[in-house]
Amino acid sequence: MGNQSELLVRAVEEVVPLKVAEEKLQNGKPMRIYMGIDPTGAKLHLGHSVPLRKMRAFQDAGHHVILLIGSFTAMIGDPTGRDVMRAPLTKEDVAKNFETYIDQAKLILDMNTLEIAYNHEWLETLTFKEILSLTSHFTVHQMLKRDMFVRRMEEEAQISLTEFMYPLMVGYDSVALDVDAEIGGNDQLFNMLAGRTLMKEMKQKEKFVLTTKLIDGTDGRKMSKTYNNCVYLTDEPEEMYGKLLSMPDHLIPLYMECCTDISMTEIEACKKALETGSENPKHLKMRLAREIVTMYHSEDAAKQAEEAFEAVFKDKGIPEDIPEYHAKEGEMLVDALLASGLVESKGEARRLIEQGGVKVNDVPVSDVNTKAEAGIVRVGKRKFLRMIV
Amino acid sequence: MGNQSELLVRAVEEVVPLKVAEEKLQNGKPMRIYMGIDPTGAKLHLGHSVPLRKMRAFQDAGHHVILLIGSFTAMIGDPTGRDVMRAPLTKEDVAKNFETYIDQAKLILDMNTLEIAYNHEWLETLTFKEILSLTSHFTVHQMLKRDMFVRRMEEEAQISLTEFMYPLMVGYDSVALDVDAEIGGNDQLFNMLAGRTLMKEMKQKEKFVLTTKLIDGTDGRKMSKTYNNCVYLTDEPEEMYGKLLSMPDHLIPLYMECCTDISMTEIEACKKALETGSENPKHLKMRLAREIVTMYHSEDAAKQAEEAFEAVFKDKGIPEDIPEYHAKEGEMLVDALLASGLVESKGEARRLIEQGGVKVNDVPVSDVNTKAEAGIVRVGKRKFLRMIV
Repeated sequence: MGNQSELLVRAVEEVVPLKVAEEKLQNGKPMRIYMGIDPTGAKLHLGHSVPLRKMRAFQDAGHHVILLIGSFTAMIGDPTGRDVMRAPLTKEDVAKNFETYIDQAKLILDMNTLEIAYNHEWLETLTFKEILSLTSHFTVHQMLKRDMFVRRMEEEAQISLTEFMYPLMVGYDSVALDVDAEIGGNDQLFNMLAGRTLMKEMKQKEKFVLTTKLIDGTDGRKMSKTYNNCVYLTDEPEEMYGKLLSMPDHLIPLYMECCTDISMTEIEACKKALETGSENPKHLKMRLAREIVTMYHSEDAAKQAEEAFEAVFKDKGIPEDIPEYHAKEGEMLVDALLASGLVESKGEARRLIEQGGVKVNDVPVSDVNTKAEAGIVRVGKRKFLRMIV
Repeated sequence: MGNQSELLVRAVEEVVPLKVAEEKLQNGKPMRIYMGIDPTGAKLHLGHSVPLRKMRAFQDAGHHVILLIGSFTAMIGDPTGRDVMRAPLTKEDVAKNFETYIDQAKLILDMNTLEIAYNHEWLETLTFKEILSLTSHFTVHQMLKRDMFVRRMEEEAQISLTEFMYPLMVGYDSVALDVDAEIGGNDQLFNMLAGRTLMKEMKQKEKFVLTTKLIDGTDGRKMSKTYNNCVYLTDEPEEMYGKLLSMPDHLIPLYMECCTDISMTEIEACKKALETGSENPKHLKMRLAREIVTMYHSEDAAKQAEEAFEAVFKDKGIPEDIPEYHAKEGEMLVDALLASGLVESKGEARRLIEQGGVKVNDVPVSDVNTKAEAGIVRVGKRKFLRMIV
């Protein structure tokens, strides 16, 4: 995977400081690079795959990559991006959750060279005196500048003093692991830079941090379990393929960049094709879906998933290109049908529904007061709409 | 020493919450009361004696009194009331300084029943997890409300995160000692109340805090080594007596209340006498000075100091009552002489100086451009002035 020249660019949101990263890469010596994970036991989706794939790219380039389990911090609760503190986990939870995690992460990481570390090993034994020497490297002003804290101070929301300790804890991980770099999501930038400060002051070593891009879910909203818009690494081939085919066209190049090894040249061509309309977006989406199913399953599985997907559409007589309609929150089906131009009046829409002439995902709609749901809407024999909710 | 009914009143600035303190006293059970000291090795003065005397009063009333040596916190540095952090001490410094301290404090405390404790015994062994459970009892807002921090945030002065840890450390002392009350100066109120919070939340016990009054130095300014206006507990009798006689009259009742066992009835009478001018303030000051020298030395020593003091004044022909003049900062002697009414013009003042007719503390002034200095100024044979700078 990966390409040495793309390490600091592809799927990358930010590298801080870029100069340090470039120097370390040019210097050619293997670096120590880590990513911290919070062992929550969640199913990993393509959003999680982005930093993991970056880790793998560094492995492939010969660097020493460490996966750090936040075993200590998980027992405390991470306030990052939350308005309330996350509930702490027990040691047993942590162990069980990590097993779930690594079962999925090994689909991406090279397990032969991966180092796995647990931060309770050094955080548990720190003395008060050592902790006070950590706090001495930070000022209250620096902490209050953190976006999340600024917002909560303005809202007069309570910030527990424990939350001020969190950047120190995860920052000290860098020192204990003696790393050159850290990879993480953009929401961890503050914590990762706290680690850079500690490395500089306690080890006189320049650490750089690399944050990866965020990708939206298959419905175009923030990728989240709540929205049911995630493609999970362990999804079955047909499910994975189908979900990917449902995404908005504009996300295709970003998914290609962040979730596959499709060359940047091809991705650029794909972007142009989307802009000029020189190619059917569905074909580009199929190219992406085949690639991703192949990565997590096999080429054969991808082919089969594609055939199954096509068969369903063919059998139902659904044409390849059907218009999309993005429903507003809580929008009624009859309103959506009118707004999308499939019917000429609400009255027509109601009549068609009452006659059994409107189907969503092949199921006739019986209630004229039903809300618009995601899926393929068929009106009569020949009119189709991809409803996006 | 002391009087049961005066425990919560005499020399007391604030009791928080008063209700808790009154209930505990009424209940009659011996309480556990402590005061924390920072072992700096400084000479103790009458200002230091105020909380120590309060401790002694509780000892005399049958309560268990603990002197807590901030052995751990001294090794960190206390930010209280400082714009920069205090330099940390070594363990050896702490031991040496405490010896100096107790040699002086034993002049006040009953050493037979006093418990001495060192906070490194529990603070050194706290784990990160335990510390995080301490931080969880405080919010950033609470910390920022502290006067000192408010001021420094407004001035954009840096506050080290370590300073936020200080109230927690000293607050945890209360928990480790399982106390009912803490005595201290008003500048420690925030820290002492942090201990009250921890006691309540971790031990379900109501702790009250008692702060003692501050007394000004013998020149009427804040008592400080820098101003050279302190009466030290170890001052020789004559020095102690002389310093006390030099204080402004209005301080007499406060010194009597805070530094002696003179009855509150007598102190009230003294206040009235000062207001109405029914008694020579010098006689009241002599009463106070005799009392204090007797406390730290003996009745004989006090008598001798008084006689020596009087003799000096008599020998020099200095009358008992001489007017005072408070010089402005940097004021020239000639200007002060004119302003005080001792001469009728600056020219007269200059002429008198040139003729050797002006003496400060018995030393003739030779330079007409000299500045006003503190001491007894004599102009000619019969005109006197107590110059206060």
